[in-house]
Amino acid sequence: MSHGYKPQESKRLDDKSVRARMLISCPDKAGIVAAVSQFLYEQGANIVQSDQYTMDPEGGMFFMRIEFDLQELEQRLPSLQEDFTRIADRFTMRWSIFRAARRKRIAIFVSKEDHCLTELLWQWQAGDLDAEISMVISNHDDMRGLVESFGIPYHHVPVTPDTKAEAEQKQRELTSGKVDLIVLARYMQIVSPKFIEQYHNRIINIHHSFLPAFVGGKPYQQAYNRGVKLIGATAHYVTEELDGGPIIEQDIQRVTHRDDVTELKRIGRHIERIVLARAVKWHVEDRLLVYQNKTVAFV
Amino acid sequence: MSHGYKPQESKRLDDKSVRARMLISCPDKAGIVAAVSQFLYEQGANIVQSDQYTMDPEGGMFFMRIEFDLQELEQRLPSLQEDFTRIADRFTMRWSIFRAARRKRIAIFVSKEDHCLTELLWQWQAGDLDAEISMVISNHDDMRGLVESFGIPYHHVPVTPDTKAEAEQKQRELTSGKVDLIVLARYMQIVSPKFIEQYHNRIINIHHSFLPAFVGGKPYQQAYNRGVKLIGATAHYVTEELDGGPIIEQDIQRVTHRDDVTELKRIGRHIERIVLARAVKWHVEDRLLVYQNKTVAFV
Amino acid sequence: MSHGYKPQESKRLDDKSVRARMLISCPDKAGIVAAVSQFLYEQGANIVQSDQYTMDPEGGMFFMRIEFDLQELEQRLPSLQEDFTRIADRFTMRWSIFRAARRKRIAIFVSKEDHCLTELLWQWQAGDLDAEISMVISNHDDMRGLVESFGIPYHHVPVTPDTKAEAEQKQRELTSGKVDLIVLARYMQIVSPKFIEQYHNRIINIHHSFLPAFVGGKPYQQAYNRGVKLIGATAHYVTEELDGGPIIEQDIQRVTHRDDVTELKRIGRHIERIVLARAVKWHVEDRLLVYQNKTVAFV
Amino acid sequence: MSHGYKPQESKRLDDKSVRARMLISCPDKAGIVAAVSQFLYEQGANIVQSDQYTMDPEGGMFFMRIEFDLQELEQRLPSLQEDFTRIADRFTMRWSIFRAARRKRIAIFVSKEDHCLTELLWQWQAGDLDAEISMVISNHDDMRGLVESFGIPYHHVPVTPDTKAEAEQKQRELTSGKVDLIVLARYMQIVSPKFIEQYHNRIINIHHSFLPAFVGGKPYQQAYNRGVKLIGATAHYVTEELDGGPIIEQDIQRVTHRDDVTELKRIGRHIERIVLARAVKWHVEDRLLVYQNKTVAFV
Repeated sequence: MSHGYKPQESKRLDDKSVRARMLISCPDKAGIVAAVSQFLYEQGANIVQSDQYTMDPEGGMFFMRIEFDLQELEQRLPSLQEDFTRIADRFTMRWSIFRAARRKRIAIFVSKEDHCLTELLWQWQAGDLDAEISMVISNHDDMRGLVESFGIPYHHVPVTPDTKAEAEQKQRELTSGKVDLIVLARYMQIVSPKFIEQYHNRIINIHHSFLPAFVGGKPYQQAYNRGVKLIGATAHYVTEELDGGPIIEQDIQRVTHRDDVTELKRIGRHIERIVLARAVKWHVEDRLLVYQNKTVAFV
Repeated sequence: MSHGYKPQESKRLDDKSVRARMLISCPDKAGIVAAVSQFLYEQGANIVQSDQYTMDPEGGMFFMRIEFDLQELEQRLPSLQEDFTRIADRFTMRWSIFRAARRKRIAIFVSKEDHCLTELLWQWQAGDLDAEISMVISNHDDMRGLVESFGIPYHHVPVTPDTKAEAEQKQRELTSGKVDLIVLARYMQIVSPKFIEQYHNRIINIHHSFLPAFVGGKPYQQAYNRGVKLIGATAHYVTEELDGGPIIEQDIQRVTHRDDVTELKRIGRHIERIVLARAVKWHVEDRLLVYQNKTVAFV
Repeated sequence: MSHGYKPQESKRLDDKSVRARMLISCPDKAGIVAAVSQFLYEQGANIVQSDQYTMDPEGGMFFMRIEFDLQELEQRLPSLQEDFTRIADRFTMRWSIFRAARRKRIAIFVSKEDHCLTELLWQWQAGDLDAEISMVISNHDDMRGLVESFGIPYHHVPVTPDTKAEAEQKQRELTSGKVDLIVLARYMQIVSPKFIEQYHNRIINIHHSFLPAFVGGKPYQQAYNRGVKLIGATAHYVTEELDGGPIIEQDIQRVTHRDDVTELKRIGRHIERIVLARAVKWHVEDRLLVYQNKTVAFV
Repeated sequence: MSHGYKPQESKRLDDKSVRARMLISCPDKAGIVAAVSQFLYEQGANIVQSDQYTMDPEGGMFFMRIEFDLQELEQRLPSLQEDFTRIADRFTMRWSIFRAARRKRIAIFVSKEDHCLTELLWQWQAGDLDAEISMVISNHDDMRGLVESFGIPYHHVPVTPDTKAEAEQKQRELTSGKVDLIVLARYMQIVSPKFIEQYHNRIINIHHSFLPAFVGGKPYQQAYNRGVKLIGATAHYVTEELDGGPIIEQDIQRVTHRDDVTELKRIGRHIERIVLARAVKWHVEDRLLVYQNKTVAFV
């Protein structure tokens, strides 16, 4: 019951086993870049890419993303991290280092619409999404055939108003310790504050409008009623405020008076899948930092 | 005190003196297109372009725009219009016929920002905006040199909270019977319901955001605070509801976390001038119909 | 071995069984619109949409597309067509009428890359592509599992330099009288003039560049070498001239110096599938007319 | 004879007098970033922005752009540059440091079309183009009024086939030692190899097509004949090969079969001015590096 598909190896020539990505945020101060790059140089690392951004003048925060190559990365990472605390402490850094070879594990939550799910499966299968899709969880059983044909476990967790708490308990059991990222691919259910807290800045949702326009339900109907000439979609991290979390990516497409709500939805599906796939790709490539309900996206 | 510029003749080969544009809206019914096109054929007119749209299923309204050529148009138009009432009555039409040679007269209202004004002047001067810019009215005197260098009258009508009513009275005197369209090119003042009523669906405003996101003041600050990844502008007809009138055109541009409010404004200026110029162009070319707070834009 | 998927019914409210589309091209002359619309009115048809275009001044050709609804369409179409010849002769028209309910049958030709194929399958399955995918023909056996999981016949027709003629003979047997449109979804093989003639303006190819830039092989390598800042894709009808047929649709995406050939290909795949899917959709909805190696696209 | 306009101060809060930009290219090697950032730190400079790119695998070239702030920049720059040679030699760097306060001086060459010129004048006047427009040189006298109204010297240097050499001699006298950048804003004349050599990678041209499609003359006619669905413009550095120099920026706009050559030109003018203005902006902000007939654009 499988396509016989295997996700293709990423086609980049880079040797992923030696590649690491470092994310840093700290108050701005002279000497940060020098200290970090000098440190990496002394460790024998080669900086492959580096991005930085100083948020100014609001508080003077400094953000940085560095990709570097280091031989015997896996063995040497623990001591490198230990040594780096010296610099991190000096600049009061929040920081993380991720190995590229340690692909992030994703649980995709879906409901009855399959366009976002299929886009993710395809990009994954084509080697464009460098992650592991560990499972798909749905409150319906409709997508089982599709998902299992890619060799991915499918969990049907029905949700009713009465069983909401126990469904979420079930979802937590399925995911705890087993996934790094939750993707709400048109899941259509509101997740609890407790669940959001557990996956802080690790739940990505796709909202079917150009936020903050048309918050809440039926955004295409709202867009039609308002007579907009562009419709959009927004991928964002989920926070307690409905449709209010940090925006990761947005895009739009031109529409006309001829497009009724059905047509807006059809066009919208294409924007949604593209926007969500970009956001997920950026997250699993460690390109996103969150600060004060906004994202710094090193893309 | 003039550039020595003259607006170039439109470069289209079409002979404007014989060209007319007809706008029709009526309840949908079989036979409308046949009746109208048969009528024009019998009059000796040649249909050059024709667009139609049936709004469905909400009420089944029919909208049509026809460009046609007719020899001796100016002389023959009165009788043609008289004859057409027969068809108009049969289908309960709202309709108008505009001669292309009768260029619409525009009054541009500005405040202190010149980017929208200069774009309109430029497109007009290049022959891209087939209209007459009859005057520029401003609550400041800053743009006088620029405007007068194009040979266009400039009226400085100061506005203070105390003199608002009398300023508007002055504006009405300047424009009444002399202009067909008011363009608020970043005018920054709210016009009165009475003024709006006088120029019903003939006042175009540029709002510096992707409406309905960021209604009201300081939209770029609002956009920055929300951390959006696209910013936009919206041209719309002015109605009593602030930023709530029928949307004519919208466009957006991609921004990043690096763009502070100043930079958002800079990028925004470029979107604003493009979007406003498009909307004005469509209006003066009789491409816009308004129905139920939306525009049908035959572009 | 099926997803259990059924292509969803198109979600438009329109009743397809009464809907027809008429395509007309003829020398321009006064009275065409009147004659056609009067004819349809007398037949009891209701015009739902109508587009026209006069190519001017080169020869003065007139092009028109009309969508109309007619009760008991299937039974009445033969006599309607017979009656229409009167008007067609009067204006020397080339014309066709297509019933919307008679979905066009497509054969998709693929080689080893699956992105264009999967996009088409997906849009078809989502009800966005209102056609019948009758078969997939490939010179490799790789996509069999995928295609058959959609319930679509898969024909493996190997092609080698020696067996080219006999492979094409086999393809002709498979398709003759059974398909209305051939889609080369990254097929990578050149089809013979004889085959092209048989499917005149009914073979759509996707070329992986913004034509006419980078005609021929390895366009992404060519684009990389030239250092372009945008890459594109072009869907066109196939003619004898390589990559020289009438262009149906094109689109582009922004790239930077950072994108190597592999990355250009990855980005390109996304443009290719979107552009090809649009072109196929327009063809099956009878929105395309070809004249003098160009398309008139009523979209 | 002036608008009374003064170019507005750039609205960025940054103090330009202390801001410098450094461009580096050299063979890739471990330790470059560490060495450069450590050097700047020791000099007391604060890195404000930093971009880097490693071209891989073709030769392993490393490119970097750093913006930094340094108190008393003007006085300290000579010794800083002297000290930096130590590092530059170690890594075989090609490098330059530019002071932001030392605005680049531009000579704009125009012929009879004014759209690119006016866009540049506007952006300059609005404070969006942080440069000095030192002069405008034209083979016609048409734009004198416009240019002088901005307070900018205008030189009319007629060019005929017979006087080409002497005209260029005159241009050289006007510009030598007085300008840093030549912008061909639809100049329509071919400049000599000798002139190109003198301003190596310092002459920007706008070509009115999406290069490499439609090289040479009448690109809009070519585009019309080919029936393309998008038209574009390309800003590039001028080299001896016609339309063959390093591409800086490109953009496109959608067109349809309805757009004749006149309309393509009208649409094209809007793309040309936007694309050229972006390229000039990037050049004067020291964002461009040229390597092997391509640009690395840190934008």
